[in-house]
Amino acid sequence: MTERLVVIGGDAAGMSAASQARRLKGPEELEILVFERGRFTSYAACGIPYWIAGLIDERDELVARAPEVFREKQAIDVRTAHEVVSIDTDARTVAVDDLDAGTRSEHGYDQLLIATGATPLRPPVPGIDAEGVFGVQTLEHGQRVLDAMDERRPERAVVIGAGYIGIEMAEAMLLRGLEVHVVEMAAQPMSTLDPEIGAKVAEAMGRMGIHLHLGVAVEGIETGDDGWIRAVRTGEGTLDADIAVLGTGTRPFSDLAAEAGVPIGPSRGIVTDRRQRTPVEGVWAAGDCAETFHRVSRQPVSIALGTIANKQGRIAGLNLGGSYGGFPGVLGTAITKVCEVEIARTGLGEQAARDAGFEPVVATIDGLTRAHYYPDAKPITIRTIAERGTGRLLGAQLIGEEGAAKRIDTFATALWNEMAVEELLNVDLSYAPPFSPVWDPVLIAARRADSAVRSAG
Amino acid sequence: MTERLVVIGGDAAGMSAASQARRLKGPEELEILVFERGRFTSYAACGIPYWIAGLIDERDELVARAPEVFREKQAIDVRTAHEVVSIDTDARTVAVDDLDAGTRSEHGYDQLLIATGATPLRPPVPGIDAEGVFGVQTLEHGQRVLDAMDERRPERAVVIGAGYIGIEMAEAMLLRGLEVHVVEMAAQPMSTLDPEIGAKVAEAMGRMGIHLHLGVAVEGIETGDDGWIRAVRTGEGTLDADIAVLGTGTRPFSDLAAEAGVPIGPSRGIVTDRRQRTPVEGVWAAGDCAETFHRVSRQPVSIALGTIANKQGRIAGLNLGGSYGGFPGVLGTAITKVCEVEIARTGLGEQAARDAGFEPVVATIDGLTRAHYYPDAKPITIRTIAERGTGRLLGAQLIGEEGAAKRIDTFATALWNEMAVEELLNVDLSYAPPFSPVWDPVLIAARRADSAVRSAG
Repeated sequence: MTERLVVIGGDAAGMSAASQARRLKGPEELEILVFERGRFTSYAACGIPYWIAGLIDERDELVARAPEVFREKQAIDVRTAHEVVSIDTDARTVAVDDLDAGTRSEHGYDQLLIATGATPLRPPVPGIDAEGVFGVQTLEHGQRVLDAMDERRPERAVVIGAGYIGIEMAEAMLLRGLEVHVVEMAAQPMSTLDPEIGAKVAEAMGRMGIHLHLGVAVEGIETGDDGWIRAVRTGEGTLDADIAVLGTGTRPFSDLAAEAGVPIGPSRGIVTDRRQRTPVEGVWAAGDCAETFHRVSRQPVSIALGTIANKQGRIAGLNLGGSYGGFPGVLGTAITKVCEVEIARTGLGEQAARDAGFEPVVATIDGLTRAHYYPDAKPITIRTIAERGTGRLLGAQLIGEEGAAKRIDTFATALWNEMAVEELLNVDLSYAPPFSPVWDPVLIAARRADSAVRSAG
Repeated sequence: MTERLVVIGGDAAGMSAASQARRLKGPEELEILVFERGRFTSYAACGIPYWIAGLIDERDELVARAPEVFREKQAIDVRTAHEVVSIDTDARTVAVDDLDAGTRSEHGYDQLLIATGATPLRPPVPGIDAEGVFGVQTLEHGQRVLDAMDERRPERAVVIGAGYIGIEMAEAMLLRGLEVHVVEMAAQPMSTLDPEIGAKVAEAMGRMGIHLHLGVAVEGIETGDDGWIRAVRTGEGTLDADIAVLGTGTRPFSDLAAEAGVPIGPSRGIVTDRRQRTPVEGVWAAGDCAETFHRVSRQPVSIALGTIANKQGRIAGLNLGGSYGGFPGVLGTAITKVCEVEIARTGLGEQAARDAGFEPVVATIDGLTRAHYYPDAKPITIRTIAERGTGRLLGAQLIGEEGAAKRIDTFATALWNEMAVEELLNVDLSYAPPFSPVWDPVLIAARRADSAVRSAG
C-alpha cells in the first residue's frame, strides 16, 4: 500500500526532507505532497539581504530548485500558494486553503512533516503593520522591499533591531546609498555576542557611517496620508524614515503545530527527538520551526538558520524514507559581515555559560590573519570562553577582516569534540605566511585561554 | 646552584624553548646559552620565498626577535656566528667554532637542546654545488638569492623539485618576471598529494605560465667560465638557466646528534619522547631536526615546518623550565598557494593510508567557497580519505581559490579527534552566503565520503 507523506512548508527543511525520502522510496511506495503558502520552493532566505543590496541580479538565483523541478524530476507533488490552516492529528488530516482559487480542501496523511519556518518578531507598537515596514524572511518579502526601493526611491532607512538580519539589512541599505539608522533596544548590536565583541561591532558600524541607536526602544511608526511609513518614534525622539526593516530576529513559526496540540518547548520551537519526531504519533518537525539540542548548554534552543534546516530536513527524510538518522544538535555557530568587517561566534558566551551552570574563564587576543610581514595581514580579535578547572572550551567569538571569520569553524569542531583549550593549542593547524602567522590566531587564543584557566586555579 | 642550558640553533624551536624556559626560571637558576651559526635568530624561514618574490620589503621584517633583544630582555646569551661542531654527551660538553674569530672553545651543559633544523636535499649530480644554485632554508640563503637577482639580472630560473618550497619559489621567480622551469622527478608536483589533486596543481601551474617538467630527473649542472650556472641537464635535454633553486625538500639536519651517538629514527630525525627528550640523558631535541609522532599513521615522521618547530620548542622549554608539557604529535597538515590557487592537505593520502594498514575509501567533490549566487564564489575541490567500515576520517586534500585552503583546519581538527565522516557531516559549521554555501564544502565532502564508505560496505 502506498503511504502518504504530507510536508507543510516548501523551503530548506521541507524540501530537503522530501528529496531525501524520495531517494529512499519511490512513488509507488511513498506519495509526497508538499504545501507551500508562498510561490517559491527551496530558496535561500539568507541571501535576501544581498539581493536587496544589489549584489545578486536575479531573484531566481536564490531558488535552488523550482516547484516544477520537484514535480518532474522527483515525483514530489508540490503545491505552492497553498496554506495549511489546521492539522487534525487524530484523524491524520490537514485542511488546506488554495490561495489562488479561494477554496479549502482536506488531505489525509500517514506521516506529516511540519517545516513552517520562522516569523519575524514585530515589536508590539502602534503602526508596526504600516506599509513600508518590511520583514525579510521570504522571497515575497524581499520582492516587496525591492519594489518599494524602485517605486518610492527611499533616502532614509530605519532598521529596527541589530540582530544578524538587522546588521545585514543595514549593510544592504548602505550599499544602496541610503542613510541608515539602526535602532536597538539592547546596549549593543548582536546580543548573542559578549559585550566586548559587541562594542567592536558597534564601532565598526559607526566607521561605515551607519547611525546606531543603542539602548533605544521603538515606540511607534508614524505614517503619511498615503498610509506609508514617515517616521519611527523612539524613546529618544523621532527618526524620519522612508522605509523600515525588521531586524529584530525571528521566532519559530510553530502556531499551527501548537493549535493542533503538538508540544512546543521553552524556546517556542516544536519539540522533537533526535530523529526529528514530535511526541505526536506520525508528526515530525524540522527547520526553523523546531526546537533542537544545544550540545554545550544541553538545553533546548531554537535557531533560525538555513544550514541547520537543511541538516534537520535531511535527517527527517532519512527516517521518513525508512532509513535511520539522528540529528546530533547544534553549537549556535553563526557568521556574518558588515562591509569589510567579519563577525562569527560559536558555543556559549560568558553569560550563557554561567546560565548553563559553568564557571567561565574568558580571555581575548588581538592577532593577524596572515604572517605580520605578509601583505594584507588583517586584524582579528578572538574571545574565548572556557570552563574553570577543566579548561574545556565553551565558546569563541571573533571579529576581524578578510580571512578572519571562517576560523570559527575550527573552534566549532573543537567544541563539538569537547576539547580543552590546552589540547586545542597544540592542534596541527595549517601554516604558511599567506594564510596565518606561525601560531594561527586560533592557537594563540587557545594558549591565552589556557593561561587564564591556569591562573583561575 | 645555577644550571646551564645550552641550545644549538637559534631559530623557531631553539628560541621558543629558550624563551619558555626563561619565563619559568630566572637567570640565577638557569643560565641559557644559545649557539647559532648564522647571523639571525627567530626568523621566519617560511617567509623567504615571499621576500624573494618582492612581497616583503625588508629582511628584518622576517626577524621576529633579534639576538640583542634576547640578551637584553630575557638574559638569554645568544651567540651568533657560532657553530657547534661536536657534542660529548658523557662529558656534557659541546665544542664550538667562533666563525668570526676563527677560534674553537668548549662549553659544559647540564641540559642540551638540539634544534639544528633541516637542510635542503641536494640531488647528487655533478655541479650541484655550483655558484648560482641556491637553497632557501636560511635568511643568508635568501639574501644570496636576492643579491644574485640584483647583480646578475637572471632571466631564466630552473627550480629543482616541485615540493612546497619548489612551488613557492616558482611563484616567487614568476612574480619577479623570470621565465620559470620546474623539474620534478615524480609524475606530479607535491608528491604528498594524491595524484588526482597533484594533477590539478600541475594544471594550475601550467595556466600561470610555469613550465613544469614532470617525471624528469636532473642529471647535472653546467657552468660558464665564471663558475656560475649556465644550464641544467635533465633526462629530457638541457634547460638554460641563469639561476637555480633547490625545491627538493629538506631532511632533518641531525648529523651532529648522530655523530654524538644520539639515536636517529627511520625518518632521519632525532628520536624524542613526548617531552622532546632524546634517549640520551640531558639531551633534548625539537623542531625540524627532530622526529615526531604522526597521529593517524602512528608512525614516526619528520616534517620541517615552523609551526611544529614553535610548538615543540615551547614544550621543550616547559620541561626544561621545570614544568611539564607533552607534544601530542602531528597530522601532516600543510598549506600553500601558487598565485591565486590555494592548496592544502592534512592526514594521510590514499597510498599512505594503505601503507599504514588502513583500507582507504576515497571520494572527491567540487564545490564553491561561497553561496553560488554570491559574488566571487570560488571553486574548491576536496578529496577525502576515510577508513572502510568505520568511516573514520584519515585525511583530506584540497585545491581551490580565495577562501578555500584554510578550510583544511576543520578537517585537521576533526582528524585530531578521530571523527568519522558520518559525524563530521552534521557538525555545526558557520554559514552565511558571503562565507559558504548552505552546506559548506567541508560538509559536502564529508557527506560524499560517508556515501562512499557505505557503498564500500
